[in-house]
Amino acid sequence: MEVKAGELLENINYPSDLKKLSEADLERLCKELRQYIIDVVSVNGGHFGASLGVVELSVALHYVLNTPYDQLVWDVGHQAYGHKILTGRRSVFHTNRVYKGISGFPKRGESEYDTFGVGHSSTSISAALGMAVASNHNGEKDRQHVAVIGDGAMTAGLAFEALNHAGIENSNLLVILNDNCMSIDPNVGALKEYLTAITTSRQYNRFRDDIGHVLAKLSELGPNALQVVKKIEKSIKGTLLKESNLFEALNFRYFGPIDGHDVKQLVKVLKDLRNIPGPKLLHCVTVKGKGFALAEKDQTKWHAPGLFDKITGEIKKVKAEKPQPPKYQDVFGHTLVELAEKNPAIMGVTPAMPSGSSLNIMMKAMPDRAFDVGIAEQHAVTFSAGLATRGKLPFCNIYSSFMQRAYDQVIHDVAIQNLNVVFCLDRAGMAGADGATHHGAYDLAYMRCIPNMIVSAPMNEEELRNLMFTAQQDNMGPFSIRYPRGTGVMPDWRRPMKVVPVGKGRKVCDGEELAILTIGHIGNEAVKACHELNAEGIHPAHYDLRYLKPLDEELLHEVFANFKKVITVEDGCIQGGMGSAVLEFMADNDYTARVIRLGIPDKIIEHGEQPELWAECGYDSFSIVNAVKKIVVGVTTRTMAS
Amino acid sequence: MEVKAGELLENINYPSDLKKLSEADLERLCKELRQYIIDVVSVNGGHFGASLGVVELSVALHYVLNTPYDQLVWDVGHQAYGHKILTGRRSVFHTNRVYKGISGFPKRGESEYDTFGVGHSSTSISAALGMAVASNHNGEKDRQHVAVIGDGAMTAGLAFEALNHAGIENSNLLVILNDNCMSIDPNVGALKEYLTAITTSRQYNRFRDDIGHVLAKLSELGPNALQVVKKIEKSIKGTLLKESNLFEALNFRYFGPIDGHDVKQLVKVLKDLRNIPGPKLLHCVTVKGKGFALAEKDQTKWHAPGLFDKITGEIKKVKAEKPQPPKYQDVFGHTLVELAEKNPAIMGVTPAMPSGSSLNIMMKAMPDRAFDVGIAEQHAVTFSAGLATRGKLPFCNIYSSFMQRAYDQVIHDVAIQNLNVVFCLDRAGMAGADGATHHGAYDLAYMRCIPNMIVSAPMNEEELRNLMFTAQQDNMGPFSIRYPRGTGVMPDWRRPMKVVPVGKGRKVCDGEELAILTIGHIGNEAVKACHELNAEGIHPAHYDLRYLKPLDEELLHEVFANFKKVITVEDGCIQGGMGSAVLEFMADNDYTARVIRLGIPDKIIEHGEQPELWAECGYDSFSIVNAVKKIVVGVTTRTMAS
Repeated sequence: MEVKAGELLENINYPSDLKKLSEADLERLCKELRQYIIDVVSVNGGHFGASLGVVELSVALHYVLNTPYDQLVWDVGHQAYGHKILTGRRSVFHTNRVYKGISGFPKRGESEYDTFGVGHSSTSISAALGMAVASNHNGEKDRQHVAVIGDGAMTAGLAFEALNHAGIENSNLLVILNDNCMSIDPNVGALKEYLTAITTSRQYNRFRDDIGHVLAKLSELGPNALQVVKKIEKSIKGTLLKESNLFEALNFRYFGPIDGHDVKQLVKVLKDLRNIPGPKLLHCVTVKGKGFALAEKDQTKWHAPGLFDKITGEIKKVKAEKPQPPKYQDVFGHTLVELAEKNPAIMGVTPAMPSGSSLNIMMKAMPDRAFDVGIAEQHAVTFSAGLATRGKLPFCNIYSSFMQRAYDQVIHDVAIQNLNVVFCLDRAGMAGADGATHHGAYDLAYMRCIPNMIVSAPMNEEELRNLMFTAQQDNMGPFSIRYPRGTGVMPDWRRPMKVVPVGKGRKVCDGEELAILTIGHIGNEAVKACHELNAEGIHPAHYDLRYLKPLDEELLHEVFANFKKVITVEDGCIQGGMGSAVLEFMADNDYTARVIRLGIPDKIIEHGEQPELWAECGYDSFSIVNAVKKIVVGVTTRTMAS
Repeated sequence: MEVKAGELLENINYPSDLKKLSEADLERLCKELRQYIIDVVSVNGGHFGASLGVVELSVALHYVLNTPYDQLVWDVGHQAYGHKILTGRRSVFHTNRVYKGISGFPKRGESEYDTFGVGHSSTSISAALGMAVASNHNGEKDRQHVAVIGDGAMTAGLAFEALNHAGIENSNLLVILNDNCMSIDPNVGALKEYLTAITTSRQYNRFRDDIGHVLAKLSELGPNALQVVKKIEKSIKGTLLKESNLFEALNFRYFGPIDGHDVKQLVKVLKDLRNIPGPKLLHCVTVKGKGFALAEKDQTKWHAPGLFDKITGEIKKVKAEKPQPPKYQDVFGHTLVELAEKNPAIMGVTPAMPSGSSLNIMMKAMPDRAFDVGIAEQHAVTFSAGLATRGKLPFCNIYSSFMQRAYDQVIHDVAIQNLNVVFCLDRAGMAGADGATHHGAYDLAYMRCIPNMIVSAPMNEEELRNLMFTAQQDNMGPFSIRYPRGTGVMPDWRRPMKVVPVGKGRKVCDGEELAILTIGHIGNEAVKACHELNAEGIHPAHYDLRYLKPLDEELLHEVFANFKKVITVEDGCIQGGMGSAVLEFMADNDYTARVIRLGIPDKIIEHGEQPELWAECGYDSFSIVNAVKKIVVGVTTRTMAS
């Protein structure tokens, strides 16, 4: 749904239009931009609080910088809606996160103003430094390079690695620390406490002021005093300025903290900073959700609230007539508490995703046994490994695509040592509207090549519970369970748990002619397909592998002894995935059969609803029906309605 | 070769023996321990400088701590030889890094004193924090948890993530920062400069002393002065102590810097620190190679010098009668300079491996175009992505097993954006004596599932040059080239370069009966096998794929049209690797053939010489001969001599 912009905003299509405004008009523009974001997101959905928090920063940056010549990198990108609206995309902003519409994140292919594609956190300083070094090398001394990064994203190791390098490169790099104390959930960690200390109490500035004031007073006490005052001043200049601030310690010039909602001050400071060479950091204090009272108050809820009434703030819920299946993440969250109540060794670990993973349920119920370690996937895994060496059983919950960031730790710290760590990979498979950066496309392939690793995926809520129950048996070693974003299929999911023998799949239905092998939730699409096919007189057998590793060899012997046509279906990349493992089994056991592998093809898949993407990739129920017909009768009998 | 220990050392088998010594004896013990390391490493090889640098620290830690009840974690582990000798392994220390001997790194399976297996850097704080949190939870308030980490390892993001978390956990954690300004190469980055500043100039301590001294003087000036003195003191306590130090900023109590070679002082400080609760950091200044003059002087060379004369310091070289093939890394290093001289877009990037990757050749020749970014694989990749967005063509050289640490950055920052970054994966395949943590076992599997990624591996030096030449053609997108540790096969390797068409393999030799498909250097084992088989009247065809992705479909059609028996050979994991890709091709093209996949099996492979490990895994020339005979004539005609 398109929405009308305010009077100033409707004439701003590009930063060149913005620059025509007087500084006095900027506050009004910010108001209009904020309102526009509220208007559009309330009816179209999307991320909300983050972009409201940087309205002034977005306006000020494009007002002062010469974008796109100057390079502006938004970290993560949840906050880039204002940027998108100001850079040629107001008229398509209502297609945000919609299939075939614009991306919810900055994306290079979408605009020359999007200098770096994002989605995962903490990449901006590295990327901007790369750009700045390239400019240096090209002799482009006037080109500005700005990374806007949240205090949450700053806790990830990648950001620190970049600061450490940037501190010794004499590049024209400005890091804007957007300090709002929030990621999706409230930030945690020593860095957050440090930033809060220097911001809220203003100790850092007050100390600088105090010292000046006190020294002035002292020097009035006479020549003796003057001498020691000079000595103190020297000490302060030599040491304090260098060492009194974490960022100064890393050789950044530190400025701030300043009010990130004062657009005039922002413009002034940004203009000044253009002329200061070398690495510098501007500490901006902002409020996530700024300008929408409810969003300011409950920032986690309003990170991405879905559709809502922009006047009353009521979040719109689809009302269901009958009980709905739960989200997989909630099954995880509740089940973990259930298990932890009986198994004292269990601990919960999340890297900054308490609400996204539903580990917040355990954090509330057992605060001493559940840990949010910050945006720090690497540490989450190695910390879990440390816990495991001391007899604890950590359930480390990390989204599939974020687990890519801890791949070495999974191999080096957990698998090589064969430690008892349970990895719960949420958002495995197509992630939906978050798009390419968030799809959990690769985990089946990258996990199954790791020795000692058990790789499993439940087809429904009951199976998730059973796999979690199984994983906490004694000495299972590294045990991974992947499940998708969104809801399962069982409204009545709280069933007694039982062990699923490791490496045992199950037959979902008997059949003839061919066998469908699936793993995980996508098996439900095969169930639908079978129903439809049965009606047409075709009866595939359907097996749910449950474990990709170890494979159920007994089941596979049964399959290949009985079927010469097999279709594998997985919500994951087909290179090296489940179908590939099945082919390896066949080769190792001298089976021949026609095998069609359905899964994510070898290309980048953009955003859309999960069923849209399954269809695009050819493994929704419709595609499975077609594939079966093709392999059984040799023709495709239907084409897709759309 | 076993070596005799000094009088004190020969009676110390475990820390319990060490504790019987008086403090006065410790210096002598350190001398003996240092000599013992020199004696053994000079004749058996291994890492050298790092362990010499922590002799006093190793002795002091085991003297003061109650190991193994107290948990001691060595970061990386190059420096743990003293620790191993003091904890039950003196008598087997001469088997260090030898096939079936003890590991060159701490390893949980080897000793209860090795609390955490290491090899890759920067894991120790996370692991020790996990242990400390577990102890907290168990109510074991007396248990100590110590991570010993170098200043180089401290630059990796994982270490920072751990500090950030540790700063808010009230756990009994001591981080010992072993500050010697070195990794394998000299450390770089802002953190290093910061540590150097507070250490060499002693500014931090001097400032603290100065302030105390000055305030004392001031207070003599009368009541007015006393008042302001109190105000300053308050400011200092409230702010300075919190903010004047990077580690204090992260809520660690900072102690030091102290001389890490003064064993008496170390013992005293470690005893004191036992009683201080919460996270704390002890800054120890040490010299890598301490006590062996040449090693102190040229620390990179003496990181792992090979065998040497312990009196003269002469490093023993195997003298060859005829020209030897070069190391692959040197082919990379020289070729990159050659290419960069003609292609101004080329840049070089290494995360702290200038000498290990031979990027130091370019760093010397073109210092403004080659970057050592510190131990920071993640940043190295995203920094490269940033360079690429601005038209540069970075060659980012990272060991295969270390690339695991940048997996997300490869996917998220390079592949999704289809940027022109060349990844050179050194130490791919079996790494040799460094063992399980360093084998580049998984890269073929984890790289080939990434869209847009070209995956290649040269069989020899000329091919490496040609692949590098190919990768720097216009707009190739992400391009990876993997090659092994050690030497190639072509003494005369500096040949003119030419393009290897992407996705084109080659036939190494014609044959009948069966085809051998190889990728990379291990193809030379197949060549040897073919020679041997030819002599026995068996003539396999041999194809070198060169590209795992895209596959050479034309070549594979030829293979499967002509052969019903195929053996694939790769120096990588067989789960999801090259053989698996070939099976996928077969399934997609309805080929049937008997396929035997040789490669790294699904288990953790320990250390040994590369040929020993290839044999163990069943893909050296001998194993290939056996596999061919088995598939051709159905029997294995020989067994291995050993």
